[in-house]
Amino acid sequence: MCDVAVVMGSISDLKVMQNTLDVLTELGVSYETKVVSAHRTPQEMLDFAKNAQKKFQVIIAGAGGAAHLPGMIASSTSLPVIGVPVPSRYLKGIDSLLSIVQMPAGVPVATVSIGEAGAKNAAILATKICALKNDSYRKSLNNYVKAMHDTSIESGEKFE
Amino acid sequence: MCDVAVVMGSISDLKVMQNTLDVLTELGVSYETKVVSAHRTPQEMLDFAKNAQKKFQVIIAGAGGAAHLPGMIASSTSLPVIGVPVPSRYLKGIDSLLSIVQMPAGVPVATVSIGEAGAKNAAILATKICALKNDSYRKSLNNYVKAMHDTSIESGEKFE
Amino acid sequence: MCDVAVVMGSISDLKVMQNTLDVLTELGVSYETKVVSAHRTPQEMLDFAKNAQKKFQVIIAGAGGAAHLPGMIASSTSLPVIGVPVPSRYLKGIDSLLSIVQMPAGVPVATVSIGEAGAKNAAILATKICALKNDSYRKSLNNYVKAMHDTSIESGEKFE
Amino acid sequence: MCDVAVVMGSISDLKVMQNTLDVLTELGVSYETKVVSAHRTPQEMLDFAKNAQKKFQVIIAGAGGAAHLPGMIASSTSLPVIGVPVPSRYLKGIDSLLSIVQMPAGVPVATVSIGEAGAKNAAILATKICALKNDSYRKSLNNYVKAMHDTSIESGEKFE
Amino acid sequence: MCDVAVVMGSISDLKVMQNTLDVLTELGVSYETKVVSAHRTPQEMLDFAKNAQKKFQVIIAGAGGAAHLPGMIASSTSLPVIGVPVPSRYLKGIDSLLSIVQMPAGVPVATVSIGEAGAKNAAILATKICALKNDSYRKSLNNYVKAMHDTSIESGEKFE
Amino acid sequence: MCDVAVVMGSISDLKVMQNTLDVLTELGVSYETKVVSAHRTPQEMLDFAKNAQKKFQVIIAGAGGAAHLPGMIASSTSLPVIGVPVPSRYLKGIDSLLSIVQMPAGVPVATVSIGEAGAKNAAILATKICALKNDSYRKSLNNYVKAMHDTSIESGEKFE
Amino acid sequence: MCDVAVVMGSISDLKVMQNTLDVLTELGVSYETKVVSAHRTPQEMLDFAKNAQKKFQVIIAGAGGAAHLPGMIASSTSLPVIGVPVPSRYLKGIDSLLSIVQMPAGVPVATVSIGEAGAKNAAILATKICALKNDSYRKSLNNYVKAMHDTSIESGEKFE
Amino acid sequence: MCDVAVVMGSISDLKVMQNTLDVLTELGVSYETKVVSAHRTPQEMLDFAKNAQKKFQVIIAGAGGAAHLPGMIASSTSLPVIGVPVPSRYLKGIDSLLSIVQMPAGVPVATVSIGEAGAKNAAILATKICALKNDSYRKSLNNYVKAMHDTSIESGEKFE
Repeated sequence: MCDVAVVMGSISDLKVMQNTLDVLTELGVSYETKVVSAHRTPQEMLDFAKNAQKKFQVIIAGAGGAAHLPGMIASSTSLPVIGVPVPSRYLKGIDSLLSIVQMPAGVPVATVSIGEAGAKNAAILATKICALKNDSYRKSLNNYVKAMHDTSIESGEKFE
Repeated sequence: MCDVAVVMGSISDLKVMQNTLDVLTELGVSYETKVVSAHRTPQEMLDFAKNAQKKFQVIIAGAGGAAHLPGMIASSTSLPVIGVPVPSRYLKGIDSLLSIVQMPAGVPVATVSIGEAGAKNAAILATKICALKNDSYRKSLNNYVKAMHDTSIESGEKFE
Repeated sequence: MCDVAVVMGSISDLKVMQNTLDVLTELGVSYETKVVSAHRTPQEMLDFAKNAQKKFQVIIAGAGGAAHLPGMIASSTSLPVIGVPVPSRYLKGIDSLLSIVQMPAGVPVATVSIGEAGAKNAAILATKICALKNDSYRKSLNNYVKAMHDTSIESGEKFE
Repeated sequence: MCDVAVVMGSISDLKVMQNTLDVLTELGVSYETKVVSAHRTPQEMLDFAKNAQKKFQVIIAGAGGAAHLPGMIASSTSLPVIGVPVPSRYLKGIDSLLSIVQMPAGVPVATVSIGEAGAKNAAILATKICALKNDSYRKSLNNYVKAMHDTSIESGEKFE
Repeated sequence: MCDVAVVMGSISDLKVMQNTLDVLTELGVSYETKVVSAHRTPQEMLDFAKNAQKKFQVIIAGAGGAAHLPGMIASSTSLPVIGVPVPSRYLKGIDSLLSIVQMPAGVPVATVSIGEAGAKNAAILATKICALKNDSYRKSLNNYVKAMHDTSIESGEKFE
Repeated sequence: MCDVAVVMGSISDLKVMQNTLDVLTELGVSYETKVVSAHRTPQEMLDFAKNAQKKFQVIIAGAGGAAHLPGMIASSTSLPVIGVPVPSRYLKGIDSLLSIVQMPAGVPVATVSIGEAGAKNAAILATKICALKNDSYRKSLNNYVKAMHDTSIESGEKFE
Repeated sequence: MCDVAVVMGSISDLKVMQNTLDVLTELGVSYETKVVSAHRTPQEMLDFAKNAQKKFQVIIAGAGGAAHLPGMIASSTSLPVIGVPVPSRYLKGIDSLLSIVQMPAGVPVATVSIGEAGAKNAAILATKICALKNDSYRKSLNNYVKAMHDTSIESGEKFE
Repeated sequence: MCDVAVVMGSISDLKVMQNTLDVLTELGVSYETKVVSAHRTPQEMLDFAKNAQKKFQVIIAGAGGAAHLPGMIASSTSLPVIGVPVPSRYLKGIDSLLSIVQMPAGVPVATVSIGEAGAKNAAILATKICALKNDSYRKSLNNYVKAMHDTSIESGEKFE
């Protein structure tokens, strides 16, 4: 059993999605990565989604452009799916964002911000979800948030 | 054997997609309609796409919002797929358009304009494609274009 | 103890957010509603967020325009927060969407689609999250998804 | 006789459109290139379009900014026309995309994604269309898709 | 000889373009109207443009969506061409505007605002241009501007 | 007497507006440049506009961001005013474009494309306007257009 | 002496700007209204701006489309100027917003939200500014904010 | 007592906000800086806002992305709050702008332009506000504006 599946359509998305892996590691949450493409390996993607519930609690999927991966995975699992809009070359991720977030009634994708910040936030959101069952994750989160808070205060004090 | 499959994710898209059916009828092109949803019936959708080549020459798929249907069908067939961006309630189809057109390298969707005009154009484009094999469709097209041309001239003459 | 808090900044958002309440009811998930405004009752909002963990598992927050409510609540709780972009009068919710989704690294909001579809999806997403601890919700979800699937098939069959 | 005409308004578009030529070559589809500009050589463009049917099966046209070339060619041929939105300097191709895709009822352009990905996809789409008459192209396509599929699987396996 | 040609692609654009005709009449500028479509009657359009210089001083062209008419006319005449973006059904004319204004270096279109205001302004701009040769038009313009000015002052005085 | 005034709000706009000066020189059209700012020297700007008719035939004004210069000059002269949207740092000129083109009924600005292409086109448009009175400019234009045409043909021939 | 000048370019903007007048009245702040147009009465506008400091403490200016009024007034006074983006017919005020807010360094306009909400907020912002000198306005504001706060609480209590 | 508080959510915003500090210094206006984050230190932020009136006359707050800081501070003080949209990585500040400016009725934020120009303008706007009570600031402003005006004239003269 593992907490989080981190899925991406292509190795080239790793540049952004590495941020997800790093934060999950930092928070002590177990994860597996999976390269599976809505467009290049559609049946494998659906099969992965159908079986994900046996192994994972949450799925994070990153995709760019006409970003169908998060929504398609969400169509075939009862697990919560978090979508990370990977910035596209020319439209800078506004296409990725709309393709992920504007899902029809019935099939939600929990969408986070475009790019690196979103990739980190996907990890934190997944941990918040897993913490419902695992109290040690709540502690990790509280430490993480407290560290952010304290760093903010300190950097402010230094500056002022 | 049939020329065109007209696919939509939900009966509610028929308001726009009826324009496709009407123009195909007018041009004398055979078609079948199919309600199949990327998000509500994903496996049926993939199965349809995988088998489409046995029966059809071209697929037209209409979808709105995070419009994944055309791209997902395109991922599983070697037939040309035409995507019609159905207008969404708040963003008026700019989300539908980007979700359909911004496909990654390897899996094209032939995208037409948003809404009714696009639905009609999908029919004409499908006919242009089928005409490569079927000369009678070329005649239909030529008549259709000539009628447009003549109506334009006449309406202009009346007006001036 | 209760599963979901449904928060909105103003009674006027209920027109959209009623969809959340209806779907939660349909799925048999317990919820409480709360009117609390980031801009009109900021301290009450923060106090609510700080204490939410004692009572709830997930928070759903709907807001429009410069929609700060979901992100501000997320800043003060370790619970997962789902944000619903309520359509604004002139910009139709693109402002609401960006104000909710584009959160900085550290404070995620699980954003869903603009308007009614998003409000419904927030309920389903919250249920997917609560189902990690409560197996009966997984059954509700599976039934809900199966009903969508079957309705889609049937409406397609009738139509074709 | 030749399969595809690849048309561009200016040599400067070749930076993007070379991707089309490369994929056509890879798929073994015959093509000719043509520099013809809607704005600098309008009559030559129309004459080309009027006569294209004698020689080609599909036309691919790339253009940027107020991108009129694909639509104008489509106005004067019964061949299917594929439009590639070439990114513009400041608006990054959103102008090119809208100028190409938003055609009025009666004159479709099969629009693909902005830039390099779209240029590649135009070649694949053209090949899908030509494959209706030429079975060897269907094999090329199937090989191409299978290679994408296998590369995706392998890169995933290596990574995981 | 006549001052202004007012060209539109379809009678349906008259709803907006009537504003042009009304202001030209009010300013006492001679004009002829012409229905000619870039997409339905492309050769007639080019022929009109090539010969326009013999009869007109300025051309006003209104078009919507993928609005190619003004730019295509501009490609084939040395007369100044004014483009009026007619609002489109879903994108409200932002597509029309970009398709008209974003012309490549070498072929300018003098673009005015979207819709009715732009249609009126096209007439005034054409008159400003014709006034370079015809002093009586300068007087018309001065009267028109003075009337606007005085009405503004009076309506202000009444209100305050 | 001089044909064209080329006005810009700041020397920093010269990077783009130099293109206007170069094309006017190439076409043999006389011009003067003027640095006058709607926001830093508003009264001088209005005074310039009020008196421009005594000396010029056409005014070209370049401005970026909240680009008020072209519209404000147009408010105080009966000469035709051409507006060049200078790209802004973050929004890349979409703000400049809308601030220039969306003028209310009564005060047109002849808007051209964003940036360098627009700056060149402003010069050509001004020459097209001046050519109504000066036949030698028509010849310049015809030569310019013919050179574009021939270069296009030649570069095409070389390439094919 | 008077606190606030409320300026609009045309009586037609009153539909939105009446909200400003109502809130100023409710807060007990003295104001005068002025109809003065950047484009129809430019010199009167500048003269008004130059002399405003003798009589007013703050200026509120509403304008739509290519909305130059707030920025032009700001160019000629050392008083703080608040700009209200009045929604435009087709672009719904995104043009008004960008034309008002994107001022160059040196000439700020304090921009508020599009439409009615912004018109109300302009009044509150003006009162916040005037309250720096007039303590009774601070009390008005505190009452206004307290009323909002209490109404929010009460409406929430009723609802829950 | 001090005139202006300059608040930012993170030291990383200083790159833009330093422009505010420099102009305040140049204008001789007293200020203090404060690092306080809506999302990382929400309670400290509210506490700062509640007490700001005791010490400051105006608050300037810079923030990017889902930029909640200016609006949240405005919710808890009767001081005027100026918001500076800091450009975001991918959307270039259009998200920051909408998140700051589109405040609901009751809680205004005086929004300035995106990035460096806006940061400078925030300082000038704050000084314009403080000048209502402090005549020496009016002189600073007049000198600042006169210097801009004269530099503009001189740079123009040199250029022409």
